[in-house]
Amino acid sequence: MPDHFEAMWHDLAAVGRSASSGGYFRQPFASAERECHTWFVEQCLDRGLEIEHDGNGNTVGWWNPIVRDVSAPPPASEGPERLGLSGILTGSHLDSVLDGGAYDGPLGVVAALAAVDRLRDRGFTPARPIGVAAFAEEEGSRFGLACLGSRLASGATSPDAARELRDRDGVALLDAMAAAGLEPELGPSRWLQDVGCFVELHVEQGRDLIDRDVAVGVASGIWPHGRYRFDFTGEANHAGSTRMEDRRDPMLTYAMTALAANKQARGSTTGRATFGRLDVAPNGTNAVPSRVTAWLDARCESTAELDRMIAEIGRLGHERAGRDGTALVVTAESVSGAVAFDPDLARRIADPHDWPVIPTMAGHDAGVLCAAGIPTAMLFVRNPTGVSHSPAEFAEMADCLAGVEALTNTLEALAG
Amino acid sequence: MPDHFEAMWHDLAAVGRSASSGGYFRQPFASAERECHTWFVEQCLDRGLEIEHDGNGNTVGWWNPIVRDVSAPPPASEGPERLGLSGILTGSHLDSVLDGGAYDGPLGVVAALAAVDRLRDRGFTPARPIGVAAFAEEEGSRFGLACLGSRLASGATSPDAARELRDRDGVALLDAMAAAGLEPELGPSRWLQDVGCFVELHVEQGRDLIDRDVAVGVASGIWPHGRYRFDFTGEANHAGSTRMEDRRDPMLTYAMTALAANKQARGSTTGRATFGRLDVAPNGTNAVPSRVTAWLDARCESTAELDRMIAEIGRLGHERAGRDGTALVVTAESVSGAVAFDPDLARRIADPHDWPVIPTMAGHDAGVLCAAGIPTAMLFVRNPTGVSHSPAEFAEMADCLAGVEALTNTLEALAG
Repeated sequence: MPDHFEAMWHDLAAVGRSASSGGYFRQPFASAERECHTWFVEQCLDRGLEIEHDGNGNTVGWWNPIVRDVSAPPPASEGPERLGLSGILTGSHLDSVLDGGAYDGPLGVVAALAAVDRLRDRGFTPARPIGVAAFAEEEGSRFGLACLGSRLASGATSPDAARELRDRDGVALLDAMAAAGLEPELGPSRWLQDVGCFVELHVEQGRDLIDRDVAVGVASGIWPHGRYRFDFTGEANHAGSTRMEDRRDPMLTYAMTALAANKQARGSTTGRATFGRLDVAPNGTNAVPSRVTAWLDARCESTAELDRMIAEIGRLGHERAGRDGTALVVTAESVSGAVAFDPDLARRIADPHDWPVIPTMAGHDAGVLCAAGIPTAMLFVRNPTGVSHSPAEFAEMADCLAGVEALTNTLEALAG
Repeated sequence: MPDHFEAMWHDLAAVGRSASSGGYFRQPFASAERECHTWFVEQCLDRGLEIEHDGNGNTVGWWNPIVRDVSAPPPASEGPERLGLSGILTGSHLDSVLDGGAYDGPLGVVAALAAVDRLRDRGFTPARPIGVAAFAEEEGSRFGLACLGSRLASGATSPDAARELRDRDGVALLDAMAAAGLEPELGPSRWLQDVGCFVELHVEQGRDLIDRDVAVGVASGIWPHGRYRFDFTGEANHAGSTRMEDRRDPMLTYAMTALAANKQARGSTTGRATFGRLDVAPNGTNAVPSRVTAWLDARCESTAELDRMIAEIGRLGHERAGRDGTALVVTAESVSGAVAFDPDLARRIADPHDWPVIPTMAGHDAGVLCAAGIPTAMLFVRNPTGVSHSPAEFAEMADCLAGVEALTNTLEALAG
C-alpha cells in the first residue's frame, strides 16, 4: 500500500533541529514552528482539505463528506459543508519543548494526514467530516501555559488571561502572534462546536507499552498535574567577604526544596515532582543570589494526592526559608484536574484489536477537549526507551506505521 | 576645602543603574561601563593628566612631575616624562557585577581623582609620577575571569588564554573589545614596568571596620580563592511520564552538592563557599534537565584549607552523582593563591593614623599586581552593613571622604 507517512516525516526532520544536540526548538510563533505550520497547511491543501484557522493560532484541515471529488476545491460560496453534522477531529501539535524530540506532537499530525490517505486508498467516503488539527503552544514552552491553543479554543482559558502571558523575553502573546503574521482573535473556536469526537495519536512518554510488548495502546485518562512557581528571595551579597552566618542565601532554600520535592514524589505511591527550570538573580559567580525562581512540575494519580504533595513541599520549603532567613512564595501557574477519557469510546477502539487501555501522566490537548465535554480518545505508539522531551525521544518506524493503521481504523469506524 | 568628590560621585550615579533594582549593570565593553570609562578619561584630561591606554582595556591618567603647569598639555614630542622614575599607581575599576553596588570599584577611581585634587590644593608637587588607573573586567562578570585587565597587564594571564574567553552570548573578548571601539592588543602593559608601588582604595566588603568602629583600614592580604565550574550531566526526559526511579536528574545532584558546599564552609574555621550562578539545559518546566552547570566561588584563609574544602565538595558531589545516575566534572576556572601585601608598606600607611590592618576575602586588582611583584597596599572604607555585590552596598559620604583624605596622605608620603 502506498503510504506517504515516511516522506512526510522526512520533510519535517530538519526543521528546528539543533545541530549540536539533535533536539528540536520549535517554540510557538517562531520561525521553525511556523515552517512546520506552513508545511502542514500545504499538505492539507494538497489533499483538498478545507483550511480553517481560528484566532488562537490553531488550524484544521477538513475532509468534508459532500465534496466527493477531493481534487476539486470545495465550492467557496456554500461555506462549510459539515454544518449539522458532528465531525471527527484528529491531529495533535507541531511545537516542541526546548531541545525536545521529533515525535511529541508531529507524530499525531503526520499520522492523521497519512490516515486520510489510507482511508482514501481504501475507497472510504466519510459520512461525517474528518478534521486534521494542529494546536498551538501545546508544550507551554514559550508562554508557560501548556495546551494554550486548545484551552483558548475550548474556553478553558479566557482571552483576558492569555493576553497577560509573556515569553521569557517579555514579548506578549498577541505581539508574538502578530509578529508571525497572524491576526489574533482570542476566544472559543467556532468550529469546535461542530466536533463530536476527538482522537489524538501520540508517542508514548513512558514505558507501559514496552512492558506489555505491544506497539499501540489506548489512553484511559490523564493524571492531575500542575505547574507551580517557587519564588525564593534573600539578600544579594559578596560571595567572598560575607560570613556564612551573615547570609540570607535563597539558593540553599531552593536546593533543599528541590531535594524535598524529589523525596516526596518517591515516597508517594505514584507522584512525580520535577524542578527543571530555574531563573537566578543576579546569577553572578561572586555574588550570593538575591532571588531564585524555580518551577515545579508535579503530577499524581489523584487530585487529593497532588494537593497533599504540593502542600508538603511548600511546608518544607517554608520551614527551610525560616532557617535561611529567606522568603518563599508559591504560585500555582496552571493546575489541571484528572481527565477520564470516554470509557466506551476507549473500549470501542481498543477491544477489536486487544490494545491495552493505559493511563498517561502527561498533559495533552486531548485532555483539554475531554474536560470541555467532547468525547475524546488517545492512541499511543510505543517508545522503546520511554524517553521523551529530549533529543533521545524515539519510536520505531514500524510502530509509527502501526499507529497510522490504528488511527485509520479508528477514524473509519467513527466517521463511517 | 573644596572637594570634587561629591560632584564626581553624582556624575556616575545614574550610569548603568537599574530602575527596578537600583543596582548597577556595568559589564565590561558594554555601554554603561564605556560611559563610565569615557567620563574617567574626560576627568583625567580636565586635570591635565596624560592618558595612556594599553591593549587590554586598562587606562591610566598620569600626573608627571616634570609637567609643572598642569593646565598646559604635556609636550607630545618628548614622550612619557616619567622614564627612569618609579611611579606610584592608584585607582581601581569601573565595571560591576550583575546588579551590583555603586561603590565596589568606582569608589577607588573617584577617590584617586579627588586625591590628586587635594594634593594640588595642598601645593604638593610629586617627585615621582602618580598614575590613576581604571582596570577592565575586575569582576569577571562578563568573561568569567576576575581581574582580567590586571592579569593581562601583569602577564598573569596569557593573551592566548584570554582570546579563548567568551561571554554568555558566545561573544569573544577580542570581538567585544573591537565592538566597543577599542583596538585590542593583549599582553603585558609597558607602563606597568614603571610602577614602583600600587595603592587601591576600596569599599570594605565585610564588617571588620564596623566592629572596630573606624572609617578606614589597611589590608594585610587576600585569602586564596577560586572559581570552579561544576558540570552535572544526566538525561533529559518527560517530567510527567518518567517514573522517579527511571530518572537521571542532574538537578538533584546539583542541589545536594550546593547544600554540601554550604555545610563544608560552615564546618570549616574560615571557609566561604557560594553557588551563585547556574545554567540549566534545556531549562523547561516539563522536562527533567539534561545538564546543570553551576559555578562555585570558594575562599579560605589558607590554600591547604581551600584545597581540602574543594576536594571534599567534589567528593560528595561525585558520590551523589553515583546514586543519581548522573555525572559530574569539576573544572577550576581560576584559582588565586594567598596574597600578602607588603607588610612594611601597610605599617607605613597605617601606623601614623592608627588604622587597623585587616585581611580581605575578596579578590582585587591589587592582589594581582602584588602577586606580580609590585609593592602593593589597599585602603578600605567602612561599609555600614557589610553588604557588597548587591544594590544595597553602601558607604557613608563622611567615610568616603575620610578615605579620600587617607589616600591623599598616603600618596603624599609615597610620591613626595
